[in-house]
Amino acid sequence: MRTLTNPREAADLPAVAADALERIRKTRPRVHCITNAVAQAFTANVMLAAGADPSMTIAVDEVADFVAGANALLVNLGTMNPERHEAVGIAVEEAREGGVPWVLDPVFVDRSAVRLAFARSLIDNGPRVIRLNAGEFTAFAGTPPDETACARFAGGQKLVVALTGTTDVVADSRRRAAIANGDAMMTRVTAMGCAGSALVTTCLAVESDPWRAAAAGLILIGIAGEVAAARAGGPGSLAYGILDALYTLDRATIMERARVS
Amino acid sequence: MRTLTNPREAADLPAVAADALERIRKTRPRVHCITNAVAQAFTANVMLAAGADPSMTIAVDEVADFVAGANALLVNLGTMNPERHEAVGIAVEEAREGGVPWVLDPVFVDRSAVRLAFARSLIDNGPRVIRLNAGEFTAFAGTPPDETACARFAGGQKLVVALTGTTDVVADSRRRAAIANGDAMMTRVTAMGCAGSALVTTCLAVESDPWRAAAAGLILIGIAGEVAAARAGGPGSLAYGILDALYTLDRATIMERARVS
Amino acid sequence: MRTLTNPREAADLPAVAADALERIRKTRPRVHCITNAVAQAFTANVMLAAGADPSMTIAVDEVADFVAGANALLVNLGTMNPERHEAVGIAVEEAREGGVPWVLDPVFVDRSAVRLAFARSLIDNGPRVIRLNAGEFTAFAGTPPDETACARFAGGQKLVVALTGTTDVVADSRRRAAIANGDAMMTRVTAMGCAGSALVTTCLAVESDPWRAAAAGLILIGIAGEVAAARAGGPGSLAYGILDALYTLDRATIMERARVS
Repeated sequence: MRTLTNPREAADLPAVAADALERIRKTRPRVHCITNAVAQAFTANVMLAAGADPSMTIAVDEVADFVAGANALLVNLGTMNPERHEAVGIAVEEAREGGVPWVLDPVFVDRSAVRLAFARSLIDNGPRVIRLNAGEFTAFAGTPPDETACARFAGGQKLVVALTGTTDVVADSRRRAAIANGDAMMTRVTAMGCAGSALVTTCLAVESDPWRAAAAGLILIGIAGEVAAARAGGPGSLAYGILDALYTLDRATIMERARVS
Repeated sequence: MRTLTNPREAADLPAVAADALERIRKTRPRVHCITNAVAQAFTANVMLAAGADPSMTIAVDEVADFVAGANALLVNLGTMNPERHEAVGIAVEEAREGGVPWVLDPVFVDRSAVRLAFARSLIDNGPRVIRLNAGEFTAFAGTPPDETACARFAGGQKLVVALTGTTDVVADSRRRAAIANGDAMMTRVTAMGCAGSALVTTCLAVESDPWRAAAAGLILIGIAGEVAAARAGGPGSLAYGILDALYTLDRATIMERARVS
Repeated sequence: MRTLTNPREAADLPAVAADALERIRKTRPRVHCITNAVAQAFTANVMLAAGADPSMTIAVDEVADFVAGANALLVNLGTMNPERHEAVGIAVEEAREGGVPWVLDPVFVDRSAVRLAFARSLIDNGPRVIRLNAGEFTAFAGTPPDETACARFAGGQKLVVALTGTTDVVADSRRRAAIANGDAMMTRVTAMGCAGSALVTTCLAVESDPWRAAAAGLILIGIAGEVAAARAGGPGSLAYGILDALYTLDRATIMERARVS
C-alpha cells in the first residue's frame, strides 16, 4: 500500500499554516482542553500566545457547556483520574453530537494498559486527529509507525495520524506529509507534546480539513521552537521563548523556515 | 444614584499601594488560596514575588487549619470540581467565623449556570471584595457594569466590586476609582486575572479597608505588567517579567506610573 | 552523641554531584513523582533539564505500573487529597516491594496535624531520604534539628535527613555534611524545595548511597540557583534561569562552586 499524496498538497502546507495562524488571530476561536495537570498552564499559554481563547475546566457538571460553546476540543490522557475520566466521556459525546471537531492525545498509552484501553474506547467517538509519538503509536496499532501502518491506521479509524518525533509525519489514508522543523532541546520542556496537540486543535478550529490542520499545528510549534532555541540558553528560556515566538511569528518566517515534504 | 467619592480618596491610592507593598514585604502575610489548577503556580509566584507567604491546599481535612492561620483568603472558582467545591465551603465558613478577610474571583460564571449559582451562594459568607470582568459582572448582577450598577451591587452585597478591563473600576457603595494601568499583552498570559485577585487578597491582608486594598492590588499588578511589557518580546517573557517587576517595584515607580482617577 | 563523618567523605561530595549529573545525562533515569499540583510542572522541568525522564501520574489504577518501571520515586505531600492519599499508599508499597528507592518530602507537616500523621505512617515503608525544612523537622521529630537530633532521627528511622535552609544539612546516623550553596531569592519561587527533592530523587536513581545522593541533589540545585541568581532580575527570571543552569552545568563549575563541609 502506497500513500497517494499529491506533491502539491504537501507544498501548500506552509501557506496553510500561515493562513491558519492569521485566522486564529482574527477570530480568536474558543478551544476547550481536557488536559493533564502538569500541562494545563503551558498549554493555555501556548494557545493564548497564538491568539486563541482557551478554557480548561474538567468539572463533570460544566464540561458539556464549555464543549458546546467551543470551536474545537482537545482530549489529553496524561494524569488521568476518575474525574477526568468521566469528564472526557461527557466531552467527547458532546463533541460528537454537536459536531465540535476534536483531537486525541493518548499520552503514555505505552506505559499503562488501563490507559490504552480507555484511549481505544474513545476512538469510537470520532476524533479528527490523533497526536502521538512512535511508542504510543506502536502500543495503539500493534505495529511500528511505518508508512503503511500510519495510512492503514488512519484509514481504518477514519482520522489523521499526527506522529511526532525528530521528523513529524501527518497522514490520513491517502495523504502524507513529513515535517522536519523543531529543535532537540524541545524534548527537555515538559508538556511540549501537549502544546503541539493544542496547536493542532487550535488550527482545527479554523481549518476544516484535519490533515491540513494537523500539519499546520505541527509546523507552527516546530518553527516557534526553532526560533526560540536559536536564542535560548537552555530549556527554561526555550519555554518562554516559544510563547514569544508564537506571538510574533509572521508569514515570511513560516514560509522561509517550514521544512515540509 | 451618584457615587460620592471624595477626589482626595482616589488621589491617595498610589501611596496606599506603595504602603501596602512595603507592609507585605515587611510582615510576609500568610495568604491562603483556593484557586484553579491552571493558575496555582503563577498565583503562588506572584504572591511570593510581592513578598507574601502563600499556601494553596484544597484538601478538605486541612483547609480549615490553613485558613485559620492565614491573614487573608482568596477563593477562585476556575476548574471547579466536587473536592474544590467542598473545600471552598469549609474555607469561607472558617473565614467568616475567624474574621479572616476574603476575596471572591468568580471565573467564567458567565459560561456556566452551575458555577453562577454556586458563586451566588458564597456571597452570603461576606467576601470583602469580588474581582471580576464585565461579562462575569453582568451574569451576576443581571445588568452591565455601569457606574450605578457597580455601586448598587456593592452596596446591596456589602462588598467592594473590583472590575477589571482596559480600565479597572473599584467601587463600594459610596466610593469609586478608575485605574488605567496595565498592558493589552497581559490578556495573552493565562491566570493574569487570577494574579490580580491574588494581589488584591495580599493587600487585604495588610490593609483593612477593602476598597483601598482592592485598588492597591490592581495598581500593583497593572504597573508590574506595564514595566514588564516594556521589555518583553511576547507573552512568555511578559509572564516572568511581571514577577521580576513585582519583586523590584519601588515607591517612586508606583507614584510615577499610577494612573488613578 | 557525635556524628562521625570522615572529613574525606564530605570532601568527595562535589565530585559525587558531578558524577551523578553525568550519569543522569547518560542514562536518562525514569523518575516517578507524586507531587503537589502547584509544583508538578516546575518539578518535571527541573528533572528534564537535568536529563531525567519524569512521569507524574497520580491515577490510582496506573501509579503502580509507573513506579514499577521507575528508577526512583518522589512522594511530596503538598496539596493532598483523597486521590493523592490513595496513590501515595499504592506507590510506596510498590516501591518497597520492587526495591525502588524513594524520597519523602513532607511539605507543611508543621501546619496540619492530619498531614503529619499521614507522613509518619509512610516512614514504615522505608524512604531512603526525607527532605524537609527546620519547621517540618521539628514537627516530625519533636525537637529542633540540631546535630544530635538529625543523627538520632536518621538512625532511628534508617533514612537520610536532608534538611534545607540557609545552609543545608545532610545526615545519616554516622555522616553529616553541610552545604552552603544557593541564593536567598530562591525562596521567592514556588516549588523550589520540591525541585530540590526532585533532584535528590533523580540522583538516588543513579547513586545507590542515599547520603551521597541527597548531598549531590542539594549541591546541584544550590549551584544552579546561584548561577541563575547572578543573572536574574527577580524571581521570574531566576526560575527559568535555574532550568538553563541545570541544562548547561559542567564539572568545573560544580567543583569550583560547591561549598561543602
